[in-house]
Amino acid sequence: MNIRSVVKVLGFLLLVTAACLLLPALVAAIYGEPDWVHFLAAAGMGVVMGGSALLILRDAPDLRIREGFAVVAFGWLCVGLLGAVPYWLSGQIPSFTDAAFESISGFSTTGASILNDIEGRSHGTLFWRSLTQWLGGMGIVLLAVAILPLLGVGGMQLFRAEVPGPVAERLTPRIRETAKLLWGVYVLLTVLEIFALMIAGMGFFDAVCHSLATMATGGFSNHNASVGGYQNPAVEWIVIGFMLMAGTNFSLHYLALTGKLGAYRRDEEFRLYLGILLGSMVLIGATLFPVHFFASAHDTVRHTIFQVVAIMTTTGFGTSDYLLWPPVAQSILLGLMAIGGCAGSTGGGIKVMRVLILLKHAKLEMKKVLHPRGVFTVWFNDRSLSPALITNVLGFFLLFMLVYLSGVLILTLGGRDLVTSVGATAATLGNIGPGLGLVGPANNYSSFLDWEKWLLILFMLIGRLELFTVLVLFMPGAWRKS
Amino acid sequence: MNIRSVVKVLGFLLLVTAACLLLPALVAAIYGEPDWVHFLAAAGMGVVMGGSALLILRDAPDLRIREGFAVVAFGWLCVGLLGAVPYWLSGQIPSFTDAAFESISGFSTTGASILNDIEGRSHGTLFWRSLTQWLGGMGIVLLAVAILPLLGVGGMQLFRAEVPGPVAERLTPRIRETAKLLWGVYVLLTVLEIFALMIAGMGFFDAVCHSLATMATGGFSNHNASVGGYQNPAVEWIVIGFMLMAGTNFSLHYLALTGKLGAYRRDEEFRLYLGILLGSMVLIGATLFPVHFFASAHDTVRHTIFQVVAIMTTTGFGTSDYLLWPPVAQSILLGLMAIGGCAGSTGGGIKVMRVLILLKHAKLEMKKVLHPRGVFTVWFNDRSLSPALITNVLGFFLLFMLVYLSGVLILTLGGRDLVTSVGATAATLGNIGPGLGLVGPANNYSSFLDWEKWLLILFMLIGRLELFTVLVLFMPGAWRKS
Repeated sequence: MNIRSVVKVLGFLLLVTAACLLLPALVAAIYGEPDWVHFLAAAGMGVVMGGSALLILRDAPDLRIREGFAVVAFGWLCVGLLGAVPYWLSGQIPSFTDAAFESISGFSTTGASILNDIEGRSHGTLFWRSLTQWLGGMGIVLLAVAILPLLGVGGMQLFRAEVPGPVAERLTPRIRETAKLLWGVYVLLTVLEIFALMIAGMGFFDAVCHSLATMATGGFSNHNASVGGYQNPAVEWIVIGFMLMAGTNFSLHYLALTGKLGAYRRDEEFRLYLGILLGSMVLIGATLFPVHFFASAHDTVRHTIFQVVAIMTTTGFGTSDYLLWPPVAQSILLGLMAIGGCAGSTGGGIKVMRVLILLKHAKLEMKKVLHPRGVFTVWFNDRSLSPALITNVLGFFLLFMLVYLSGVLILTLGGRDLVTSVGATAATLGNIGPGLGLVGPANNYSSFLDWEKWLLILFMLIGRLELFTVLVLFMPGAWRKS
Repeated sequence: MNIRSVVKVLGFLLLVTAACLLLPALVAAIYGEPDWVHFLAAAGMGVVMGGSALLILRDAPDLRIREGFAVVAFGWLCVGLLGAVPYWLSGQIPSFTDAAFESISGFSTTGASILNDIEGRSHGTLFWRSLTQWLGGMGIVLLAVAILPLLGVGGMQLFRAEVPGPVAERLTPRIRETAKLLWGVYVLLTVLEIFALMIAGMGFFDAVCHSLATMATGGFSNHNASVGGYQNPAVEWIVIGFMLMAGTNFSLHYLALTGKLGAYRRDEEFRLYLGILLGSMVLIGATLFPVHFFASAHDTVRHTIFQVVAIMTTTGFGTSDYLLWPPVAQSILLGLMAIGGCAGSTGGGIKVMRVLILLKHAKLEMKKVLHPRGVFTVWFNDRSLSPALITNVLGFFLLFMLVYLSGVLILTLGGRDLVTSVGATAATLGNIGPGLGLVGPANNYSSFLDWEKWLLILFMLIGRLELFTVLVLFMPGAWRKS
């Protein structure tokens, strides 16, 4: 690996982040809050560090695929650490570990928070929290379209973008074009949500923050009680709609915008996504109704739909504390945390596409047992999948489970109870935010120890960057000079 | 599928079970207990049903591979149901569901019990409970050596028996010979344990029952407090030793008996088995010592080793309620429940061999990402594994997780809490016995509803018969006439 080339690109990413830090500085200035200076200071740090890296290493060779992993993993980490600086400098989040947790939770679109008093934060801080998520979401779209297929990670070659067929060896103009189109969809939906929320009665600032957090499936809210804090059913229904869209493959939205509405119906992944959502809603709703958990049928339906969509899309917004619901809600939501959104969306988790391939493979293995001499193929959206791709997806699932179990083991080793450990690992590895036990929707991660927070930061990055990207860096082979 | 051929073999199995039922009848007669007549009645039922099946279907064609699955799955079920009859007739277990649960828990070597007052049962009942486990263990050895490799289930082709190389198409004399040798090892170890336990001060009857249950990794005890009820450290150490051996590939013991002691050291699966056991003991012990959970260091060491070995070998005996231990004990034991014993042992779970192959595959997938053009092979005990076999093992893992999650979903849907649902599913699917929550080691399954008990019976069979054997029967293709 050529570390100079990697650092050069990291320098460029820091410069971009520095530019983005001007926005919360502006917001702070508009609201007359003193922390505009801390956002500017952080931006200055980014310019100095990023600029000097670019200057000193300007003749470093271009990136090769081998370096791609390091750029993605360290890029997210460095950007996240720079994003933590203003929280820390301004004293809005006094501990640097907490600031880093909040910032990386943002850039990884997780939405796990350490803040006990969200309403007491400055406007600049609240806006920056939401913006980090939105920027993270943009990064994820780029990653899914352009970078992961190149790196051959966990079946992402398959992701139904505009570019079918064999994967090119470098960013072709066509892939670049695709990324731009999907970013356009992302921006358009964000703007639409801002308008919709304002029409429903939300203020401009809150509408912007929540829209940024929704489309990234992030889940940071300006309320301690999350979206439920607005006590506004119309807002909740709007957020449900946009979370659903944020968890869907963006290229389907693009096709729909160009008039090909049938694309949704024809996509196998989208059908399974809706099926799982509907099934979960029915099962949870069926247990909530008989116990009269909510005052009215409308409340029961809305809270059920909201929570199922919020968790499966890995957004993590809340309107009700599902830990108080009947136990089946917890087991279903825990399952949805692992499944996550569609490939090519901003949702995290294993992804519906991979779950579909895994289910098809399981059926095929049973058929093989019955017909040992039969030859079978797994089909996905009318394409036959190669055995290598299926093994790759199986390997992804295996690594996901290994990291999951390691997380539970390490957290319980530190003394956390089993349910909290499972919940915290699932919620960070799947980039959801709220988990189970001590980190349920009515709580947050502030009570965790520093080492636990750094561990969960690592899980957020591992989950968000599709495991392989981060995990291969732990192999000595990745660092060998070539 | 030719159902007549299947029923003919089931008839034969019922006759064998009827013969075995004479033993507890004899025990009951010796102790002067009235239920000898019920054991005889059950034996009579078996003779009538089995005999008439054999007579009526005597000209049914021989079995083909396709029918193997049905014979294995329905064989275990029918034998288990016949084994429940004496419990029920004698009134020792008044509900037939409970009697079936106890009997199938026995034949599947699970050891989950619905009995609240074990000490109050008759000698015949206690002996039959242990004998069902021992017979189940014999069946498992036969299954592993002879039947599963033939059916091509989940990598069992690999199981290091005396017969390496390509798998023959039917039971060769050589495989039959292997099965007999391993049965010899099984009988020998059982007899040795009986002597050892008696020397340590246990009575003859209890020594026999516990030895039968140990070697089958079953875990039924004649005490409500399980092995801990004897308050005898020597007994506990002896049971630890024999559980360890019961969880090991029996062909290694055979090789050792023929003087090849190095076989243990050379076997990769055995090394990982010991490694996982040791690692778990160290982690749990390290959390028990500082909190002074037990009165003495010897107690801490003994209880830790006992519980780790009892759970990983899937025996499920108990000496201490691990639910009261620090939380890491629960997460580790839950992990061990899934891993289980070695292939070719009587232990359940995924099996150490498969876990090893999965770990090697995960490493290989990471290497592939780093070196997209590299060609890699997974090696196990100096043999290179074919991609088809690895996919098969991955498919096994996938199905295991699917059944596991379905179990948790269904139990929570019925209203059980999350931890109990996870614990009960893990403990029955992995054929352990005690689980977590309401079904922890200080409790049993008596509080479960009838439908839950039948669901758990299904999991015991699915887990014990290596998933595929039972699951393929749910596919319509299995029932088509060929």
